[in-house]
Amino acid sequence: MKGQYAVIGLGRFGSSLATTLHQAGNEVLAIDRNEERIEEYKDHVTYAVVADSTDEEALKSVGIRNFDAVIVAIGDDIQASILTVLILKELEVKKVVAKAINKRHGQVLYKVGADWVVFPERDMGERVATQLMSPNVLDYIELAKDYSIKEVKVPPSMIEKNLRELNLRARFNITVIAIISDGKVSISPSPDRIIKEGDILVVIGENKDLDRFEKFN
Amino acid sequence: MKGQYAVIGLGRFGSSLATTLHQAGNEVLAIDRNEERIEEYKDHVTYAVVADSTDEEALKSVGIRNFDAVIVAIGDDIQASILTVLILKELEVKKVVAKAINKRHGQVLYKVGADWVVFPERDMGERVATQLMSPNVLDYIELAKDYSIKEVKVPPSMIEKNLRELNLRARFNITVIAIISDGKVSISPSPDRIIKEGDILVVIGENKDLDRFEKFN
Amino acid sequence: MKGQYAVIGLGRFGSSLATTLHQAGNEVLAIDRNEERIEEYKDHVTYAVVADSTDEEALKSVGIRNFDAVIVAIGDDIQASILTVLILKELEVKKVVAKAINKRHGQVLYKVGADWVVFPERDMGERVATQLMSPNVLDYIELAKDYSIKEVKVPPSMIEKNLRELNLRARFNITVIAIISDGKVSISPSPDRIIKEGDILVVIGENKDLDRFEKFN
Amino acid sequence: MKGQYAVIGLGRFGSSLATTLHQAGNEVLAIDRNEERIEEYKDHVTYAVVADSTDEEALKSVGIRNFDAVIVAIGDDIQASILTVLILKELEVKKVVAKAINKRHGQVLYKVGADWVVFPERDMGERVATQLMSPNVLDYIELAKDYSIKEVKVPPSMIEKNLRELNLRARFNITVIAIISDGKVSISPSPDRIIKEGDILVVIGENKDLDRFEKFN
Amino acid sequence: MKGQYAVIGLGRFGSSLATTLHQAGNEVLAIDRNEERIEEYKDHVTYAVVADSTDEEALKSVGIRNFDAVIVAIGDDIQASILTVLILKELEVKKVVAKAINKRHGQVLYKVGADWVVFPERDMGERVATQLMSPNVLDYIELAKDYSIKEVKVPPSMIEKNLRELNLRARFNITVIAIISDGKVSISPSPDRIIKEGDILVVIGENKDLDRFEKFN
Amino acid sequence: MKGQYAVIGLGRFGSSLATTLHQAGNEVLAIDRNEERIEEYKDHVTYAVVADSTDEEALKSVGIRNFDAVIVAIGDDIQASILTVLILKELEVKKVVAKAINKRHGQVLYKVGADWVVFPERDMGERVATQLMSPNVLDYIELAKDYSIKEVKVPPSMIEKNLRELNLRARFNITVIAIISDGKVSISPSPDRIIKEGDILVVIGENKDLDRFEKFN
Amino acid sequence: MKGQYAVIGLGRFGSSLATTLHQAGNEVLAIDRNEERIEEYKDHVTYAVVADSTDEEALKSVGIRNFDAVIVAIGDDIQASILTVLILKELEVKKVVAKAINKRHGQVLYKVGADWVVFPERDMGERVATQLMSPNVLDYIELAKDYSIKEVKVPPSMIEKNLRELNLRARFNITVIAIISDGKVSISPSPDRIIKEGDILVVIGENKDLDRFEKFN
Amino acid sequence: MKGQYAVIGLGRFGSSLATTLHQAGNEVLAIDRNEERIEEYKDHVTYAVVADSTDEEALKSVGIRNFDAVIVAIGDDIQASILTVLILKELEVKKVVAKAINKRHGQVLYKVGADWVVFPERDMGERVATQLMSPNVLDYIELAKDYSIKEVKVPPSMIEKNLRELNLRARFNITVIAIISDGKVSISPSPDRIIKEGDILVVIGENKDLDRFEKFN
Repeated sequence: MKGQYAVIGLGRFGSSLATTLHQAGNEVLAIDRNEERIEEYKDHVTYAVVADSTDEEALKSVGIRNFDAVIVAIGDDIQASILTVLILKELEVKKVVAKAINKRHGQVLYKVGADWVVFPERDMGERVATQLMSPNVLDYIELAKDYSIKEVKVPPSMIEKNLRELNLRARFNITVIAIISDGKVSISPSPDRIIKEGDILVVIGENKDLDRFEKFN
Repeated sequence: MKGQYAVIGLGRFGSSLATTLHQAGNEVLAIDRNEERIEEYKDHVTYAVVADSTDEEALKSVGIRNFDAVIVAIGDDIQASILTVLILKELEVKKVVAKAINKRHGQVLYKVGADWVVFPERDMGERVATQLMSPNVLDYIELAKDYSIKEVKVPPSMIEKNLRELNLRARFNITVIAIISDGKVSISPSPDRIIKEGDILVVIGENKDLDRFEKFN
Repeated sequence: MKGQYAVIGLGRFGSSLATTLHQAGNEVLAIDRNEERIEEYKDHVTYAVVADSTDEEALKSVGIRNFDAVIVAIGDDIQASILTVLILKELEVKKVVAKAINKRHGQVLYKVGADWVVFPERDMGERVATQLMSPNVLDYIELAKDYSIKEVKVPPSMIEKNLRELNLRARFNITVIAIISDGKVSISPSPDRIIKEGDILVVIGENKDLDRFEKFN
Repeated sequence: MKGQYAVIGLGRFGSSLATTLHQAGNEVLAIDRNEERIEEYKDHVTYAVVADSTDEEALKSVGIRNFDAVIVAIGDDIQASILTVLILKELEVKKVVAKAINKRHGQVLYKVGADWVVFPERDMGERVATQLMSPNVLDYIELAKDYSIKEVKVPPSMIEKNLRELNLRARFNITVIAIISDGKVSISPSPDRIIKEGDILVVIGENKDLDRFEKFN
Repeated sequence: MKGQYAVIGLGRFGSSLATTLHQAGNEVLAIDRNEERIEEYKDHVTYAVVADSTDEEALKSVGIRNFDAVIVAIGDDIQASILTVLILKELEVKKVVAKAINKRHGQVLYKVGADWVVFPERDMGERVATQLMSPNVLDYIELAKDYSIKEVKVPPSMIEKNLRELNLRARFNITVIAIISDGKVSISPSPDRIIKEGDILVVIGENKDLDRFEKFN
Repeated sequence: MKGQYAVIGLGRFGSSLATTLHQAGNEVLAIDRNEERIEEYKDHVTYAVVADSTDEEALKSVGIRNFDAVIVAIGDDIQASILTVLILKELEVKKVVAKAINKRHGQVLYKVGADWVVFPERDMGERVATQLMSPNVLDYIELAKDYSIKEVKVPPSMIEKNLRELNLRARFNITVIAIISDGKVSISPSPDRIIKEGDILVVIGENKDLDRFEKFN
Repeated sequence: MKGQYAVIGLGRFGSSLATTLHQAGNEVLAIDRNEERIEEYKDHVTYAVVADSTDEEALKSVGIRNFDAVIVAIGDDIQASILTVLILKELEVKKVVAKAINKRHGQVLYKVGADWVVFPERDMGERVATQLMSPNVLDYIELAKDYSIKEVKVPPSMIEKNLRELNLRARFNITVIAIISDGKVSISPSPDRIIKEGDILVVIGENKDLDRFEKFN
Repeated sequence: MKGQYAVIGLGRFGSSLATTLHQAGNEVLAIDRNEERIEEYKDHVTYAVVADSTDEEALKSVGIRNFDAVIVAIGDDIQASILTVLILKELEVKKVVAKAINKRHGQVLYKVGADWVVFPERDMGERVATQLMSPNVLDYIELAKDYSIKEVKVPPSMIEKNLRELNLRARFNITVIAIISDGKVSISPSPDRIIKEGDILVVIGENKDLDRFEKFN
């Protein structure tokens, strides 16, 4: 059973979000003031309507109350973004997610009732910065303040050795959760498993230990 | 030993990236055509200069060749973004990362020599969509086409049971890597470990199995 | 002992408010983004500074916390108006009064913490409408839903009669509180008082009775 | 028997005025150059037409001569405001009320024949200033240069006392006209009447005496 | 003894007027808001100042009251033209001449006190039209509704005849006042005077008779 | 037999010219790029068409060759004015009259073939200047370098005297051509004619003598 | 057998190119975003369509792959010019010629795949400069670094002499290839040929020798 | 002895022309209204001044009369281009070359006195069209209506044959003037000369014959 989402504002963030939700099989209503954008995306969502989201009647007429969540992805028009959230909460929409472009904007959005506020450019800036600083790390999750799971390219010096020899737990205080080799994932690999060129290790541990490991050659 | 980065363009993405790199202890040079922005961020980076990045002499005069990587975070001025990447590669900058606003823009950036092209709004749209669809999942990494690691809030029905009773491997074909409880991480938890309200499970497995688990109550 | 007020925004409403407060002997700080306006009003207030009220540091540097009340009289820039109120409440200003240009704007202002929201053009429209409909009424207060006090020009047919003869209480069910004659006010006038041409009666009563009286010739 | 009014210009002031007149049962014709505004207000007035009020023929064709009063509520276009008043007086409209945005504008409007010129923002600025300075005063009328009637919240120290004890005439030289209690109005209350928390006194007197009373606790 | 004039507005009309007055030996003050124009004309008038003529203080500071006449030659800014005339009359300037761009503008200028209103483009359009229709007429004055004096090129058929032969009074009912021959003027020429090719006759008479004469070959 | 004229450009000068020609019974074609202007003037000329006068085909299609004269009254678009004159002369229009806004513009117009160039604002500036300097002179013609005919208001000292007594020829060396009294014109008035208050003398003479007379009281 | 060309962008360069190709009998498709331009040129090419050349579908729908060459003559919109070339090469157009407005633009065009980049204004500037410096040279080809063929007007001193007498090979080290006389060309003229006034010599030689010859009188 | 040139307008055409003249050793004065352009080119010409070329005084003050030729390379401001040429001819500049952007503009430039009018974009469009149609032709001169000299790449079938065998005069009716081989030029090559791959033939003949030759493989 799939969800029903409305996305207001089809800029780069909003359109990416709307099409991703739609490709995953959800029912997606896209709303934008701009007719050209609606034309451009109408085949990538379930319904697409030209409407001004600060017009309460327009929102009612598309049955906005019935959606599981409404995402206010309005770009730079802070005023429209705030008023839209205000109206959506007055209409008792269950979940309102809103995009903020800076800290103050985020504060106002929470004050007028947004359930979740996202800062796409700021967050993406942080992600790209982290990846730049750790070029061997392909992706990561922060589990807690000091703990992470990371996907790390194996350093040249470890190739053709097995996990027992490498003894990463003793040397770096980290645990290998999985190995990705040619797009295949081996969970909890055996200590005899030999590392190949191009393998990726999925490791868990404290950040300071993971850092040491990433920079090891 | 920290890195040296130059960030060109201090919009929301660029400024977030520059300040994250700087807070992590790197040397960061920020460049923007706009004097007000330079003024606003000059205390959050190592150096900040007003310059037009399509002016080769200006880039030379700040020693752009010596940076480990240069990030072209220019917003909507596609032409300036392309010319800047072209000049940086002519100047033999080691690594040029560039922000693209759409697919075509990304293609041109690769053609003129960019080493890595990022699409912040598109990627963030996808991440937020994924999180919306799986409200119990706090974060995730895609390991391969069908495999992921996810942080999942425990469903109510599992509270006060231990891992042996839950027997997730058998029921869902997934493996618990770690449990996060009150911000503390236990790696490879013991089968006797009892799940508390508010605990988060870090699990690995195939996406279809993880999906079933997320939606279980 | 006089008060201390800050007025942000020197449009027609704000400048009128600021100069009225200052003429009444209060200490008034005027703030506007626009240098020309500050120049124009600097001799009609105690202090006048050019500043952007959405810049928290600027507000702190003028000691905005110490004022008895801050009036946000920003005209049409709804976004600036909202952010200013938000910042003022964060800075713990005691009393924040804000001008709204429509109902929605007013709602947002209350949500972000405004203590009192005024709608000058709307209220003035109502006052002028009321005066147009009752040209014999010079001013009025609504005491309750159906009760008012009004200043009414005497109709021609009452001139040269005394209050006893006119017997307004019996005929119209209203009470004469005072008579204004040539700019002089007689409170609770005697029943022998003779009405002159140009006299104004200050009367209290139910609106329906006052209406009958106003329209009487 | 109700009146007939034409309102030219549906900005915030004009639209508030027009709808107030209409709600009071008058016949109201609204005129604006802007089609969107006419659309927005057409259900809140009797007739609404898109027309340029500086076009004499347009004004004739709506029978402008027949209205009891025409209100020129044109906002910032001083030229259009002046020409409209000129034409209305040439067409022998009985009563022309015009909104001015500053003193000079007001002077020109009187010169070209306006019967009454109002300054909404300036007047509202003065009213709000007065209320700010006297937070215990809810509303007021100025009867003459030094005399007013005011609605004042009772100070804490007077609660649960009767009017004879309070003896306001002797102590403050003011007269209690009425008491408003829970939205009910008692005119000329008896000396035995006991003041309750939340009561409002309607008092008349000289301003200097009323001031002393307002500030008394 | 020459006059003192101030000209406000140095467009094509104003600048021509100001330089003509100055060349005739008068003292001329030129005022314009635009610095470039003042720079351009400062050597063709006595004094030239950059000022906004709607600023009463600016007009006072140049001693505007002392001029024999002030000409308001402001081009298309009707509002500024009206306010300037209003202020000049408040300052008790003896003679205020103002340029109007249409009939309504002219009416308002008279209402706010202008002593003389001119319509340069309209009047010049009429003069050029008249000259086009009568190509033999070089210049003319209308003396009364039906009477004019005109300078007329002699028709070919009259050349080498004397005035007696031509007998214009009898044939056309017009009187020859003067003959202009090679730039020399003979007043009341003798009946024996012979007309040469290129001579110009200055004639007086009723318009219908003059018309017949002009068109005669 | 009336003429046929085309007027290109319906600004203030062009529209005045076109309507004057039409009122005098001529056939007038008005051309303007601007549809609103054509709409405004279409009832004041014979034909009115929206067309771009720099489009040769458009001019041909209205049969521009057949007009007696074409007046290019284009306002501030110097380029369009020049190209229009060029095309008209290529199309062999008999007489092309063009409006210039300054000396250079006038030179170019003559170079590209204009038959007559007029400078309405400059000429009108000169006329108004002349009238300002001679307030007793109502109108005038310059006959030659030093000779003029002028309409002069009689000075107070001459009222109730006859022409013989006044002996203007001897005292001022000027000749009285006519007297205008209450709108009636007497040509060559008798020496016994008595001057009344309000009479206007039409005099001819040298400028220096006429000047002396004008200033005489 | 004629060619098939598509020209994108109908500015001055593009329209001249398209009409030249069409007059030479080729099939020419003209594409421009601007409807007016398409209207203007539609009779001077084979097909003319309004389309945005950065829209891949639009280019496909006109069968752009089938043309022998596509010329991207887009003016100042560098971004559109780059994207258009990129798309054309993706669509595997055989030959893409593109106009660059400066050196950098040219570099990017080559990087995204242009087969030939032209710089019309720069090249024309060079040609006109060369002709200015050699006013006797009517046209020229550079054959190699130091060799050219030039068309040179004969200097006065050579008129009425034959080629043997002139002996240009010996005196200037140049060869006469042809003589153009009254628009007729004689190839390899005989030594007895006598030079006439107005003849043009087509000569080949080293630049330094040709220079000497050109400047000889 | 080199020449002295002034170039007015430093767009792409003007700047290319000015730098070409300067590189050839001439004295070049560059004039532009735009300070940034002057800054950009000041090191590529002899003198560079910011000036408005429609200001006669400015042109006099740089001694414009003394230049051998003045090139008016003003881009799209047709009016400025015309006025500049007019002034230059009034100042008696010997040779005025002007850039036109279309046929009409060119006509006006000749009328106001230009000695030579060039159409860079139109001419370059024609040249590029010609080269596109004859891809084997590298450059060419038109000698007369039907005669040209062309540089042609040798077709594959002629390689390794000598000129006698090829017998181009008999087969194509054209004459080989020179052969360019590896950048070296042989004038009037011997009949035994063998053609190599990559050689270029310089041939003269009638266009129809040259065409046949170009297309021969």
